[in-house]
Amino acid sequence: MNYGINHQVGVKASPDEIYKYLTETSKLAQWWTTDTRGGGAKVGDTLEFWFYGSFCQKFNIKELKPGKRVAWKSPKGQGSDEWQETEVTFDLSTDEKQTFIQFHHSGWRESTDFQGHCSMRWAVFLLSLKDVLERGKGRPIPYDLEVDYR
Amino acid sequence: MNYGINHQVGVKASPDEIYKYLTETSKLAQWWTTDTRGGGAKVGDTLEFWFYGSFCQKFNIKELKPGKRVAWKSPKGQGSDEWQETEVTFDLSTDEKQTFIQFHHSGWRESTDFQGHCSMRWAVFLLSLKDVLERGKGRPIPYDLEVDYR
Repeated sequence: MNYGINHQVGVKASPDEIYKYLTETSKLAQWWTTDTRGGGAKVGDTLEFWFYGSFCQKFNIKELKPGKRVAWKSPKGQGSDEWQETEVTFDLSTDEKQTFIQFHHSGWRESTDFQGHCSMRWAVFLLSLKDVLERGKGRPIPYDLEVDYR
Repeated sequence: MNYGINHQVGVKASPDEIYKYLTETSKLAQWWTTDTRGGGAKVGDTLEFWFYGSFCQKFNIKELKPGKRVAWKSPKGQGSDEWQETEVTFDLSTDEKQTFIQFHHSGWRESTDFQGHCSMRWAVFLLSLKDVLERGKGRPIPYDLEVDYR
């Protein structure tokens, strides 16, 4: 249970603005994968993240606190094996200069090379989220900064 | 003890070439911080990473396997409090297309927001290492991609 991914990134945008990019399908599509379907704005909704037209990773929306917290849970029996029943959370906090996103991907059963790959990839997409918020343009798949291909 | 940072990045360079960038002071200075001092090529050596002319993080070289593995240990009583006695390792493996760097920063006593910050920063510097190897130019401090300022 401690084999989680823990990232923090500072973004020059308000918590409310960031929250939109974590809950609205068309805005999520601007930083992770352009092919994002379903809904993320209500607890119980399901988001579908499609990669390269073939692979789909679903998340059920578990918790939403506008401007503060977003929690997703990966359902059993779909998507990446190692991600099954794992949880992704985004917590937002501010200081006088910016908003911090505390990102956790928890519930991994072991620490593997694939987890290391996912950790780098999450970092790349959090930088993409930062870029869309600060500069108006992210790098979602398939326009992402590739870090490996395994 | 399980509160570690685990990243993997694929690089289009040979393990021997990558190994140089993990052990030679002048090459380390091309991807983490330009002000890198001391030595990293022999077990027992000490590397000093200086940040913004004021803060120094030291690592003792604990293990070296050319083209395969580099391990550093942060000595007690210096540098970042949370990094004291933690260990940084780089393991290299290859497939037909590239070399993978398996990066671990282990021995954290707890999972904190500062750890999340460091995890993002390590990802940024591993991308910088990838860039210097693939394109001849990294983004070491003070030319780095800033991800937050806390």
